[in-house]
Amino acid sequence: MKALQDKILKEGIVKDGGVLKVDGFVNHRIDVAFMNEVGKEFKRLFDGVEINKIVTIEASGIGIACIVAQYFNAPVVFAKKNKSINISGDVYSVDVASFTHKTVNTIIMSKEYIGPGDKVLIIDDFLAKGNALKGLITLVRDAGAEVMGCGILVEKSFQEGRALIDSMGIRVESLARIKSMDNNELVFID
Amino acid sequence: MKALQDKILKEGIVKDGGVLKVDGFVNHRIDVAFMNEVGKEFKRLFDGVEINKIVTIEASGIGIACIVAQYFNAPVVFAKKNKSINISGDVYSVDVASFTHKTVNTIIMSKEYIGPGDKVLIIDDFLAKGNALKGLITLVRDAGAEVMGCGILVEKSFQEGRALIDSMGIRVESLARIKSMDNNELVFID
Repeated sequence: MKALQDKILKEGIVKDGGVLKVDGFVNHRIDVAFMNEVGKEFKRLFDGVEINKIVTIEASGIGIACIVAQYFNAPVVFAKKNKSINISGDVYSVDVASFTHKTVNTIIMSKEYIGPGDKVLIIDDFLAKGNALKGLITLVRDAGAEVMGCGILVEKSFQEGRALIDSMGIRVESLARIKSMDNNELVFID
Repeated sequence: MKALQDKILKEGIVKDGGVLKVDGFVNHRIDVAFMNEVGKEFKRLFDGVEINKIVTIEASGIGIACIVAQYFNAPVVFAKKNKSINISGDVYSVDVASFTHKTVNTIIMSKEYIGPGDKVLIIDDFLAKGNALKGLITLVRDAGAEVMGCGILVEKSFQEGRALIDSMGIRVESLARIKSMDNNELVFID
């Protein structure tokens, strides 16, 4: 998606250690008008695919997922990172390591909101090492639901996540694929 | 908003200790179609008010805020609960006690995304003791921006939050106002 590449080049901030900050339109300030263009693009890419539920993970995935969900007339279910007193015990759970935050989180999804018959599109902001996405796929499959595909905003194609998800037999569509960030310079896969 | 009262009565779960769970359409599964009705209602209520930014707090506020923001043609900025390595040091911050999670969080907002001249509508799911909302108002005011109003989905009017925010001179519009939850029975203010 050319418009996303341009936006990343214009508004993204590259930091040492392979960190790309897109706080200006995704992870802190959300450019809702632009996310509607993202939604249209995912709808174009997954046109004709049966999808009745959008799954994502808190917190950054929620905004994108909600806007995208409008183009699929589907509700969003987001995996939660911590067990709160407000969620029932009847959940699917899986452990996920976070590269960004250097922690391991147990992510959970209530059995009430996902189950056999669900045709799921997973939406997330980043695909890097693939741990979060693998965790979400595991939750959906544990529920007996089907992952119809993954829609990712930014893929760091120089990390191992894409190959990991491909090896699980899941279709991945990433709207911007970063080939390299050497010397803090962004190079995209066209 | 009658449709919201009906939805809370139908899908909400009342638990002991004044806890109302709306995980089925707000806090875990998000009913995106219904949130569009919520967005239209906030637009009706705040019609004619100059608003150029929607502010909320992660995680549950983000989905509502993004859908609502479309009706104001405004971006969303969400306060973050923890300092991550991916956010710069140049932030406004305030401590907020969470009734639900029994913790104190420092919430932060980057100085890049809020400032003088901003006319802010704050959107959140619940108003109970008012701590989160007061924290958000403080962040916005610290930034030199103006709080034009607060749009709340569910107000527990039997708790002190509404009076607290009223005392700050801020307009609050709550789409469902719960008068009491005695014996786990919901009574709304009409």
